[in-house]
Amino acid sequence: MGKKRGKQTFALAAPPYLAGAYTIAGTKEGEGPLGECFDQLIPDALWGETTWEKTESKLMTTAVRGACQRADWTEGDAELLLAGDLLNQTISANFSARALGIPFFGIFGACSTMAEGLGLGAMLIDGGYVDRLVATASSHHETAERQFRSPNELGVQRPPEAQWTVTGAGAAALASPAVYHHPASLAGRSAVTVTHVTVGKVVDLGVKDAGDMGSAMAPAAAHTILTHLHDTERTVGDYDAIVTGDLGHVGHAACRALMAAEGVVPGERLLDCGVMIFDASRQDTHAGGSGCGCSAVVILSELLRRLRDRCYRRLLFVGTGALFSPMSSQQGESIPAIGHAVVLERGE
Amino acid sequence: MGKKRGKQTFALAAPPYLAGAYTIAGTKEGEGPLGECFDQLIPDALWGETTWEKTESKLMTTAVRGACQRADWTEGDAELLLAGDLLNQTISANFSARALGIPFFGIFGACSTMAEGLGLGAMLIDGGYVDRLVATASSHHETAERQFRSPNELGVQRPPEAQWTVTGAGAAALASPAVYHHPASLAGRSAVTVTHVTVGKVVDLGVKDAGDMGSAMAPAAAHTILTHLHDTERTVGDYDAIVTGDLGHVGHAACRALMAAEGVVPGERLLDCGVMIFDASRQDTHAGGSGCGCSAVVILSELLRRLRDRCYRRLLFVGTGALFSPMSSQQGESIPAIGHAVVLERGE
Repeated sequence: MGKKRGKQTFALAAPPYLAGAYTIAGTKEGEGPLGECFDQLIPDALWGETTWEKTESKLMTTAVRGACQRADWTEGDAELLLAGDLLNQTISANFSARALGIPFFGIFGACSTMAEGLGLGAMLIDGGYVDRLVATASSHHETAERQFRSPNELGVQRPPEAQWTVTGAGAAALASPAVYHHPASLAGRSAVTVTHVTVGKVVDLGVKDAGDMGSAMAPAAAHTILTHLHDTERTVGDYDAIVTGDLGHVGHAACRALMAAEGVVPGERLLDCGVMIFDASRQDTHAGGSGCGCSAVVILSELLRRLRDRCYRRLLFVGTGALFSPMSSQQGESIPAIGHAVVLERGE
Repeated sequence: MGKKRGKQTFALAAPPYLAGAYTIAGTKEGEGPLGECFDQLIPDALWGETTWEKTESKLMTTAVRGACQRADWTEGDAELLLAGDLLNQTISANFSARALGIPFFGIFGACSTMAEGLGLGAMLIDGGYVDRLVATASSHHETAERQFRSPNELGVQRPPEAQWTVTGAGAAALASPAVYHHPASLAGRSAVTVTHVTVGKVVDLGVKDAGDMGSAMAPAAAHTILTHLHDTERTVGDYDAIVTGDLGHVGHAACRALMAAEGVVPGERLLDCGVMIFDASRQDTHAGGSGCGCSAVVILSELLRRLRDRCYRRLLFVGTGALFSPMSSQQGESIPAIGHAVVLERGE
């Protein structure tokens, strides 16, 4: 049973283990700086399917099966699936849940979905309900572009603040300490646990430009980081890295400035998955990566490796989501944003 | 800490109280058989807003504030909001969470959302994470029609199997036994608790007709009911009512037949919120009501009253969701469906 700290943070009594993780990404992601870190790359945007939406669901299903395998679970071991994505009515998750046959709670946090799933999942394990579950999130460049912006075929010019939706899915297999066995795939590496969850509040400072999601989400990211540090009575120095989901270059700078205005200067420790995943100078990705899949594949590949390989002892992952829709923008609404945070810590 | 029963059911160790509930609905719902049961009716589809989407969000916000008041909570008491709806990117919930300022996890279960929220919420309270939270869901006839079917102005003829999306929102304030005080608004009535949660699996028997959602969802409802009875080693006789979310007349009959095929004959005890909310003979609602708001306003008004007034001792609420999107249907997919169940029981 967890303990609440402050207004929004929960310290888990028996931190669940990240027993297995799997990341799968697209070709452009494969050509980026983290290309070699992903478990699997797909050869093209369709990957043998007839529509990009079916491909996205297949990415998620593959990630979930991969994470279960990495955890040395056999089929049927996963007791619960927490899954979400960006598509209308979260169809990637729904059809993936159909393929997997695992009891399923659908979640929606836009690009914060991976953090929401890790947080909720850790609480449901720590609370004693299940011993093994999978949290997952996905996005696909082509499905997101035509739903949120313009079909690629139109060739609409992208503003410099725009981000590039990542094609990819990540899945995390979480296990209670009671059933966790050090999986063979860790091979001498450290185990990683989820120790804290900070649930975000919606923050909306009035940004209306759907082409500049980083600026819309930065205040929510900063709010959650500052709240987390306050709730836990910790400082930036207690973390080897504070990693936001997909603020991109514009939002990353804005988040840094908002934190500095509150006297918190994270320096090199503040990272962003959207900044890390692409090389803007040669990949034409403008402000960086975005989408539910962005933070999912970065956190569960390279950053998890740094924890397991003892480069890091503890990191704060702050998934960030822009909770708008094309229709809410058309109706003149600004963009509500949220940040959910989880602490990942080397367990042994 | 809860105990798992069978594969999909959790028995809560310290069942949370349904400390307050509030329902708000549209004019057509007000003219139906349950019209007098709702806490509030709105005068027209827009209720002073400029778009139906803004109205739907206002319905949800009003329901949440009403449930908190009914629980005798002051502002800031609610520690967590679990909210979802049918709109793309669940904007009703997102904008409501912005207005309310409560830490927020977005959920998506299509029309099963109210049951998902009650289930997850009960587990997060029983798990010791929060003492007070609100679960809510909404739908709006006009927002759903133009998103899922055709704009009303087109006057497209509805098939006889079609259901009528309910305009309404319901919210439930859940409290841990540790903090529950019998609210004044109960005035001599019984308190009600959430004792069990059965998490659904996706069931898809291949129905593709988006105009006949009841047939698509009935197998998922029957599967969850039968699984729940198996997991808890209970029979239909242990419940005064088994209430599905929004199968409507067609799906209700199909669910009954599917249960009978497994030797379970619920008789009069099997009810459906979609059947109850409209009078098909005089309201031109064809197969009945649907939408996240349908089961939310029926369960949290008349059915909750029957528990509080000691007509019922225990009921099983099975929220049912069709997890498709217009795009998945256009791409030739069948309709995956899910049913999440919670047991509501008179506490004293």
